[in-house]
Amino acid sequence: MSTIFSEDFLLHTESAKKLYHGFAKELPIIDFHNHLPADQIADNKNFENLTQIWLKGDHYKWRAMRNLAIPEKYITGTATDWEKFEAWASCVPQTLRNPLFHWTHLELKNPFGISEYLKPESAAGIYDKANALLQQPEFSTQGLLKRFNVEMICTTDDPCDDLMPHQTLSNSNSTLKMQPGFRPDNALHINKTSNFRKYIKKLSAVTGITIDGFESLVAALANRIDFFEQNGCRIADHGLSYIPKWKVFTGELDRELKKYINDEYVTAFSEPDTFIANLLLELCKIYHAKSWVQQFHLGPLRNTNSRLYQQIGADAGVDSIGDDAQAENLAQFLDYLDKNNQLAKTIIYNLNPAHNEVFASMTGNFNDGTIRGKIQYGSAWWFSDQLDGMEKQLNALSNIGLLSTFVGMLTDSRSFLSFPRHEYFRRLLCQILGKEMENGLLPTDLNWVGKMVEDICYCNAKNYFNL
Amino acid sequence: MSTIFSEDFLLHTESAKKLYHGFAKELPIIDFHNHLPADQIADNKNFENLTQIWLKGDHYKWRAMRNLAIPEKYITGTATDWEKFEAWASCVPQTLRNPLFHWTHLELKNPFGISEYLKPESAAGIYDKANALLQQPEFSTQGLLKRFNVEMICTTDDPCDDLMPHQTLSNSNSTLKMQPGFRPDNALHINKTSNFRKYIKKLSAVTGITIDGFESLVAALANRIDFFEQNGCRIADHGLSYIPKWKVFTGELDRELKKYINDEYVTAFSEPDTFIANLLLELCKIYHAKSWVQQFHLGPLRNTNSRLYQQIGADAGVDSIGDDAQAENLAQFLDYLDKNNQLAKTIIYNLNPAHNEVFASMTGNFNDGTIRGKIQYGSAWWFSDQLDGMEKQLNALSNIGLLSTFVGMLTDSRSFLSFPRHEYFRRLLCQILGKEMENGLLPTDLNWVGKMVEDICYCNAKNYFNL
Amino acid sequence: MSTIFSEDFLLHTESAKKLYHGFAKELPIIDFHNHLPADQIADNKNFENLTQIWLKGDHYKWRAMRNLAIPEKYITGTATDWEKFEAWASCVPQTLRNPLFHWTHLELKNPFGISEYLKPESAAGIYDKANALLQQPEFSTQGLLKRFNVEMICTTDDPCDDLMPHQTLSNSNSTLKMQPGFRPDNALHINKTSNFRKYIKKLSAVTGITIDGFESLVAALANRIDFFEQNGCRIADHGLSYIPKWKVFTGELDRELKKYINDEYVTAFSEPDTFIANLLLELCKIYHAKSWVQQFHLGPLRNTNSRLYQQIGADAGVDSIGDDAQAENLAQFLDYLDKNNQLAKTIIYNLNPAHNEVFASMTGNFNDGTIRGKIQYGSAWWFSDQLDGMEKQLNALSNIGLLSTFVGMLTDSRSFLSFPRHEYFRRLLCQILGKEMENGLLPTDLNWVGKMVEDICYCNAKNYFNL
Repeated sequence: MSTIFSEDFLLHTESAKKLYHGFAKELPIIDFHNHLPADQIADNKNFENLTQIWLKGDHYKWRAMRNLAIPEKYITGTATDWEKFEAWASCVPQTLRNPLFHWTHLELKNPFGISEYLKPESAAGIYDKANALLQQPEFSTQGLLKRFNVEMICTTDDPCDDLMPHQTLSNSNSTLKMQPGFRPDNALHINKTSNFRKYIKKLSAVTGITIDGFESLVAALANRIDFFEQNGCRIADHGLSYIPKWKVFTGELDRELKKYINDEYVTAFSEPDTFIANLLLELCKIYHAKSWVQQFHLGPLRNTNSRLYQQIGADAGVDSIGDDAQAENLAQFLDYLDKNNQLAKTIIYNLNPAHNEVFASMTGNFNDGTIRGKIQYGSAWWFSDQLDGMEKQLNALSNIGLLSTFVGMLTDSRSFLSFPRHEYFRRLLCQILGKEMENGLLPTDLNWVGKMVEDICYCNAKNYFNL
Repeated sequence: MSTIFSEDFLLHTESAKKLYHGFAKELPIIDFHNHLPADQIADNKNFENLTQIWLKGDHYKWRAMRNLAIPEKYITGTATDWEKFEAWASCVPQTLRNPLFHWTHLELKNPFGISEYLKPESAAGIYDKANALLQQPEFSTQGLLKRFNVEMICTTDDPCDDLMPHQTLSNSNSTLKMQPGFRPDNALHINKTSNFRKYIKKLSAVTGITIDGFESLVAALANRIDFFEQNGCRIADHGLSYIPKWKVFTGELDRELKKYINDEYVTAFSEPDTFIANLLLELCKIYHAKSWVQQFHLGPLRNTNSRLYQQIGADAGVDSIGDDAQAENLAQFLDYLDKNNQLAKTIIYNLNPAHNEVFASMTGNFNDGTIRGKIQYGSAWWFSDQLDGMEKQLNALSNIGLLSTFVGMLTDSRSFLSFPRHEYFRRLLCQILGKEMENGLLPTDLNWVGKMVEDICYCNAKNYFNL
Repeated sequence: MSTIFSEDFLLHTESAKKLYHGFAKELPIIDFHNHLPADQIADNKNFENLTQIWLKGDHYKWRAMRNLAIPEKYITGTATDWEKFEAWASCVPQTLRNPLFHWTHLELKNPFGISEYLKPESAAGIYDKANALLQQPEFSTQGLLKRFNVEMICTTDDPCDDLMPHQTLSNSNSTLKMQPGFRPDNALHINKTSNFRKYIKKLSAVTGITIDGFESLVAALANRIDFFEQNGCRIADHGLSYIPKWKVFTGELDRELKKYINDEYVTAFSEPDTFIANLLLELCKIYHAKSWVQQFHLGPLRNTNSRLYQQIGADAGVDSIGDDAQAENLAQFLDYLDKNNQLAKTIIYNLNPAHNEVFASMTGNFNDGTIRGKIQYGSAWWFSDQLDGMEKQLNALSNIGLLSTFVGMLTDSRSFLSFPRHEYFRRLLCQILGKEMENGLLPTDLNWVGKMVEDICYCNAKNYFNL
């Protein structure tokens, strides 16, 4: 019996153990999509305490705490850091079977070397021990990334970002590769009115391009794509509930867009989907021309709880899995790019696991024989980022696509302590494969299967992203 | 190997056995939603025979029998009770892997002490043995509920019901708590025309309120909610294919409603969804004001087979799992109530298991830190009420919400013999948890995990419903 | 540990082994839906080499090869047969966990007796060995079907087909039963314009009936149904993304149809769904009158990649799983036929596994007590035709319908080497049932469970199709 504190956690067969310890464990991490703050990396920041590095900004924990009747004061409110930690510690014993329970203890074990359950009785001791370590140089942001064996990270950045931290880091003697990730959501989500209008003004200012319609908007974004590329960016990302249906963006719509950008009295653009579909296509053409990888995160219903959204803002822990239809528009979108030979390497993530097979089959339609695993069905995301969800994604990918070409795991996290999720994924992968070796579904050839483990955990991403 | 007749049925590990026998088995049952006939409980009825108590009204069995080419005569028709039982017995051996096979034998074992498979050869003996027992006082309705260790049941009642049986029982010296459940479906389903118009007349008569539009309809229902509350009701329930999209219920619609109620020549209300959404919101506000629990059963496509519907009526075994989109309207509905601080404790059940994760994530958006597990993702329902379905619901809830706050199982049944479904659920729960204790996914601390078992099987519901 | 080359592959318990070897293994195959070329069977063709019989036309393999960056030349292009085989062999080691990996080696083992993994090092030897065998009389099309113990096959034929091969074979002394399958997709898919107009002309020519509207189109198809019946046809099949919503096919639409058929300048029919729903209903009435079995394959999004579609045509390996809603229209369609007592025996297949439970429940609504398992929820199809997919279909069917009445597996294949998929299915079925016998979910009565295995693998289909 291997508990979470054991080196064989999740590994229930000899083959699984050999795969993990012999092939997966020591591989560096390529974390090609996350939300880490680049400035804190460039500054090599040390965090004050465990609440600052671990609880602040973690909407997974917030949801659990609200469910357990913890008042908002102790979640996102005015309580002290210790009070918030104590509140979280009181919740942990009640998170059994939620990924938070495993994440919590994997993250206390590595990097802090703590091998006891977090609960009210252990809270003070754990808080003190971790806080002391957090003051040490090895527990700075860069120190942590090194400790986690992170070779490369790709952050998530707005087109208007100045990328100063990325420049700072690349001019330093750090061996960490930190790429910016181009995420133009603010330019796409046209009907979040006040935000959009303000954003376009900002984009104009940053680029020096007067944006007065579709063409100049594309030009301004192209300008920023150039700037991002000069700063090492090779990956774009987009967050959408679904890929909108494409229709011609007419001259009339363009005139409406101009008016919408400039006139604060116009409250909604009449055809937001047409706008988004067209702008997205133009961006994708540029990504292709630059040989970037493009990512799409599809499926959420965001900010469902308007009370908490107004109180806390986005990412308040009140987002949900949507159930919009996905297949038809996505097919048309990819086909439009493919038939014009403008389809870049693409990774598509789905939030609703009921759509796993739709996405696994869709991605397989647009491989063109030029690049191994060109169109990727991305790793289990967000609410699905747990053992069941990862296994379902791996199964759908395996059954309908090819597991062997998979670029694997990413944290998608806002926290410097989330890297054990790569360990979690690797253990699960080895457990699944090891079990199938032992029951005859896979060849009993450790090197054959082990090579696939290495590819999925490291080599495929390294090749795919040209690192 | 533990067969269905063994005390360790479904329990494959030592931990599972310890959890079940040590924590779950002896707990009382809180059956907070079922369709038991309150009058038969108040009357402490004895059933004539096994067909009367077990086959009559069980559309699960009817579907199986039709599939096995049993003529309708032996299902809902004119055959004798023995002939019907004989027909069912001939089907049972062919129900392997359907929950009916397990339910059948769990229900014969408890309460009847029968430990052999029902099949043509054993049918007569089983029929005679059970029928003899059914004549005994301990096998009356109240006797059975006592034998099953049922502490509380909540029935499902129409707003026009007089709740006489509930009054009778509460005035008796029975220790059983029987609450009425307020289910205003007949007032919501506006376009089942003749039914609706007839129903509104009845509601007017019962309340003495002339219903000539939306406002008076709400007043009449509020009147009945008061009446239900006076009779111990604390739970409402609603059956809908989906939560309809909210739009303003205009004065024009109100005039149409008045005409629709009064004029038999108007065959359909023009905006049924707008009517339902608005009426539902008004009802939910009242539930909140009274600190009730509100339930929503979402997803069925009912009465698909019009031939059998006309022949037998509703609940004929010809209902189906729908695939309407659920997320967006449900989010808006809950948000409307939450932002006005009018969101009552809520349990939401989904029929389509492809929506499990949508519902598990949605319910997590509206916990506000005031009540433990305030918004519940309800137990696997109807077609999903079997081992796979319950495990999937438990997994979605665990992965995306918190299993520890779950109020657990209910029978939703029309039969006094369905209470072993609680046993079935408890065994499965203990098997899942026990297995994960033994493979290191959960702590190997029996009291820790056992406490969660107790909470899910009994304590959470006891607290949630203020019993 | 039983590898794929072992006789106990997939069978992990003693019960599973006894069920497979004692009940399933020796049963003949009834392959009631496939896409085998009838002429190659009638001609008793021998294939030139393994590429011709195995790779040509197999879009599963094509997708894998494109994913692995094999240029199209080696997939569907001008490379030699050996080069194509070599390319495929280089891919096989990278197909672990995809059904292709198991299929490949099951198909090399039976019929070729090859028990080594296909990979670059073994490619030449395997190619030579298999090619030599393919020249032998026992490896002709009829020889292979005999070797696979195939009792009956039903091909998939267009209404205009002359069915000469079927006549030839039935006039020969072959013991193989080969039925034609009536598949009128070309007459239904009205808005594939040029194809449709051309097709109607062909249908007119074949039947001698002038098709100038809905009525004459139905008459022409009825004429072909008669012809098919005279040639042994008893099964119809239809491929649709979804069952369209029924509306009256008005006189106006009929006039539009006439114009659409005759005028090449009209590019789209205004209400294709209304046309399809009405025509389908008329066809289904005829099937019922003739006591045929009707099949519906629902859910694909076809030809998503227009570049490859134009290059290669349909079935190029660029089809996808759709996510259209299915329940409501399907219910109305079946109800329309049932209430008029015109609902034939029906098998419905779904492509999107997220819809499994919707289909499993829907089929149960229309059993009428006249025919055992009258309305069938069909076997896992296409992308779902793998271990996980088959298990999910079996589970949904078991939990919501009755496994015992299931007519079981079919290949749906274009290849004479695909019959080991029946073996694959049978092994999985026995594994699932054997495991549940050993853990107490099923009775430990081998004959009871074994009888169900025989029914599913052979007897149910034999009875259902009146063979």
